[in-house]
Amino acid sequence: MDTMGRHVIAELWGCDSEKLNDMKFIEETFVDAALKAGAEIREVAFHKFAPHGVSGVVIISESHLTIHSFPEHGYASIDVYTCGDRIDPNVAADYISEALGAKKRENLEVPRGMGPISVAKSKVTAQ
Amino acid sequence: MDTMGRHVIAELWGCDSEKLNDMKFIEETFVDAALKAGAEIREVAFHKFAPHGVSGVVIISESHLTIHSFPEHGYASIDVYTCGDRIDPNVAADYISEALGAKKRENLEVPRGMGPISVAKSKVTAQ
Repeated sequence: MDTMGRHVIAELWGCDSEKLNDMKFIEETFVDAALKAGAEIREVAFHKFAPHGVSGVVIISESHLTIHSFPEHGYASIDVYTCGDRIDPNVAADYISEALGAKKRENLEVPRGMGPISVAKSKVTAQ
Repeated sequence: MDTMGRHVIAELWGCDSEKLNDMKFIEETFVDAALKAGAEIREVAFHKFAPHGVSGVVIISESHLTIHSFPEHGYASIDVYTCGDRIDPNVAADYISEALGAKKRENLEVPRGMGPISVAKSKVTAQ
């Protein structure tokens, strides 16, 4: 497989705190996001923290999706990294952002596996 | 927990191809890297691809470590993301880079959970 990949780093603010603390909902959302983007799921691992917060990963044939949620801050830190040019990581990131009810999203895309690292684009969007 | 985190994105080139294809070695290396950095391990999930390549994640209380290896290119794409200021993600990234025998490493550090995303530093080092 070619090393070329696209890594979307998204900071989601103003999310629904209840959803951010619901591990089952987040896991289902991430699996659905991966499938909607056309990815092939290989491993799914999520963890619920006490008193609040969820961390998790979906490993796909094309790389991974991760989340760390902070319900008390309405914040979720997500990454969607896809290798190859068949899948657009923003499809999954958009789906997750909407599912979590993010009011504000910052997005950074980092090309991976292509030699020198450069930041492709950065944007802030009110949802 | 505070949302503040440090996310190290490292591109490792010129790695030992046999190590990059050895899932057990990579999993042990990642667990050791997390422990050396002082992280608390929560979930470990690795996957071996046919004919070559390993993807995996170690979820820690402080966020995550991931890898996608491409033995045929001597390339490994790694992420070490740690929340809080107690742990230095570079301790884990340095350990992994050395364990995989990387000859060249590009490093990018992205602050997370702090509002607008900005890239903190970028460096290329010959190992």
